[in-house]
Amino acid sequence: MNSRFIHIALAATLAAPMAHAQPIDYENQEEWKAVHGNSQSPIDVVTSKATTGDAKEPQAIRMGKTRSKLEVEDNGHAVEVEVDGPDAVIRGRHFKMAQFHFHAASEHTINGEHAPLEGHFVFKAADGRLAVVGVMYRPGAANALAGRVLQAISKSKKGELPSSDISSLLPRNKAYYHYLGSLTTPPLAENVEWYVLKEPVSMSEAQLDEFRKHYPHNNRKIQELNNRPLVAYPMGRKGA
Amino acid sequence: MNSRFIHIALAATLAAPMAHAQPIDYENQEEWKAVHGNSQSPIDVVTSKATTGDAKEPQAIRMGKTRSKLEVEDNGHAVEVEVDGPDAVIRGRHFKMAQFHFHAASEHTINGEHAPLEGHFVFKAADGRLAVVGVMYRPGAANALAGRVLQAISKSKKGELPSSDISSLLPRNKAYYHYLGSLTTPPLAENVEWYVLKEPVSMSEAQLDEFRKHYPHNNRKIQELNNRPLVAYPMGRKGA
Ligand SMILES: [Zn+2]
Ligand SMILES: [Zn+2]
Repeated sequence: MNSRFIHIALAATLAAPMAHAQPIDYENQEEWKAVHGNSQSPIDVVTSKATTGDAKEPQAIRMGKTRSKLEVEDNGHAVEVEVDGPDAVIRGRHFKMAQFHFHAASEHTINGEHAPLEGHFVFKAADGRLAVVGVMYRPGAANALAGRVLQAISKSKKGELPSSDISSLLPRNKAYYHYLGSLTTPPLAENVEWYVLKEPVSMSEAQLDEFRKHYPHNNRKIQELNNRPLVAYPMGRKGA
Repeated sequence: MNSRFIHIALAATLAAPMAHAQPIDYENQEEWKAVHGNSQSPIDVVTSKATTGDAKEPQAIRMGKTRSKLEVEDNGHAVEVEVDGPDAVIRGRHFKMAQFHFHAASEHTINGEHAPLEGHFVFKAADGRLAVVGVMYRPGAANALAGRVLQAISKSKKGELPSSDISSLLPRNKAYYHYLGSLTTPPLAENVEWYVLKEPVSMSEAQLDEFRKHYPHNNRKIQELNNRPLVAYPMGRKGA
């Protein structure tokens, strides 16, 4: 990225260009207007718009511990699973997984196409940074762990599962599309690094139906990208 | 950080706890309320509240190229310098410096105390992430480069300096206090990683006066930390 590009990209957010737009009155700071809502999630991932990541930094997602006791809950708007232990190194930084949950249909679309189900694996770093890894689930072979998660809440709103390896709910290949976005439920805070994995994971039609029985429609509408960079890792042949 | 802590820390921002607070109506998404304004900058850095960073990830700030041609401007609310080239690896990720500028008095305070002047070195990553390194300037020996910056705009609003080494405006020791915050001028967007350096840099009283002649008061008021983690690197003896 050359300096000219940075300057243009910063124009919307940094102080200098504001001078030409409106004065900054330090004696009346109460009247300063905060602008929000331009970095929301989910988005449509247009793969031809993806750019390459920065080769001068680590870009991969490397899962660490993947086993945890699972506390499954139908929480009123999603099937959610709290975990204790799983962690990952995401672009060099260390995150701990807090929970994962499911949306039907998928919240993100890839080139306009929904998957039947999307899983959100929510990670948090020591400084409070959130990173969410999105996984698309498509019809195919049954997923054993998804079956046990659904079974755990088949008779009541909450259930527990003994120590399980959650890696079967994630694709082996952690190639991703990355952008800076928001939570997709209120309070919609814009503090989330998104990593939508390219490779889907399969579930049986019966399992997808079972998730839809809990929530047939708990996906937020697509939001505008608004000039945010969309980074693909690794970069494929046709741009992504 | 154990799972219970993560769960509590996430409670304000993640979907699960919202279920107990209010329903999420996917058929009326237009009515969802976004909550913003809880992660603003600057803050008072209370060093006794600082926690250690995550030892499982790189934590240091390493400057890369530090020479650049400088375009100096009195932009209507700050003395600002655009640069082309300087870069840094900040906690493992690669950033390019876009500009730096000065606030009098300092915007951040450390244990309630202002410095006469604070420099903000604004970095941007390929994915749009902003990181700002804050430097406190205190009275002492004159800073040669600060003198040339002031000289460049002594007769008009803009001036240029030939390729210069900006490292003299930064302390040699890049120990920092880190938290997630916002721009300190409108639009106040909450997308900034802050790194307030512990070691100050000196300027002469005459140089500090010269900056104050441009802007005697261009510092935003202190904002609430609101439970955001404050990370010290490296961790000192008494907590920070
Ligand atoms: Zn979600
Ligand atoms: Zn500033």
